[in-house]
Amino acid sequence: MRAWVFGDNLDTDAIAPGRYLKFDIGEVARHSMENVDPSFASSVRKGDIVVGGRNFGAGSSREQAPEALKHLGVSALVAESFAGLFYRNAINLGLPALVCPQAKRIRAGDDIELDPITGRLTNRTTGETLACEPIPEFLMQLVRDGGLVPHLEKRLRTTS
Amino acid sequence: MRAWVFGDNLDTDAIAPGRYLKFDIGEVARHSMENVDPSFASSVRKGDIVVGGRNFGAGSSREQAPEALKHLGVSALVAESFAGLFYRNAINLGLPALVCPQAKRIRAGDDIELDPITGRLTNRTTGETLACEPIPEFLMQLVRDGGLVPHLEKRLRTTS
Repeated sequence: MRAWVFGDNLDTDAIAPGRYLKFDIGEVARHSMENVDPSFASSVRKGDIVVGGRNFGAGSSREQAPEALKHLGVSALVAESFAGLFYRNAINLGLPALVCPQAKRIRAGDDIELDPITGRLTNRTTGETLACEPIPEFLMQLVRDGGLVPHLEKRLRTTS
Repeated sequence: MRAWVFGDNLDTDAIAPGRYLKFDIGEVARHSMENVDPSFASSVRKGDIVVGGRNFGAGSSREQAPEALKHLGVSALVAESFAGLFYRNAINLGLPALVCPQAKRIRAGDDIELDPITGRLTNRTTGETLACEPIPEFLMQLVRDGGLVPHLEKRLRTTS
């Protein structure tokens, strides 16, 4: 899967620009990242991985930020660290977000493969393997179920 | 309330040292921060505020980290940024965590007051006012209810 690489402190306004928030998620997604990488929204493909630096997803808590990335088919996020609110929203939407201290070793366009359970990231372009922090099992269950709402629905069905 | 100030990338092992995790939360809390500030656990008082730098709560997802701070009576956390997993756990436990870009202006021992709704932080020692990012209303409801579990219980009672 192709790696789309962004820098430190990338904020939610870059991911989901404020002036499109009044439109539906398809329209927001079409403008995702347009101020930092105008080719992103039209070129990203299903399964691709977004790579960030420190404090990825800083700024406002708008849920459309992870939602736009999911809508575009992004399969996972990898960053040195994530802003708390963004991380919460991403996981709640079922979009896996992995902390990877060596994320900066990944270059734009690298062909990478990620196992969110073990945290193992294989870079096929460079032949390198990076160790990301695996998603804790209690959150992985939520991601597997497709996010918080379907996860709770499933649990409530099971217990009732 | 007294400010207890810590640096960048303070990890969950500093907050809740691994070798005490097999004991109850009272014992874990008694050793909180002992490797960075041995006076913290015995001197912190109900209502005090913990102040961090960048990526506060990095490292493992252990829920005992925010739980220990809550157990010690810490009323809120303020930091330049929070690690995603730690932030999630803190909010789920009903412990307010506020992003404050100017957190480094607060000195250890300053007498500070924080309004988590508006994000206004008043430093009575220096006379300064800092603007933190308010906790979004949907999360503040969860914090007010005492955390995720009581919040869900309340909502389920209301809707059933």
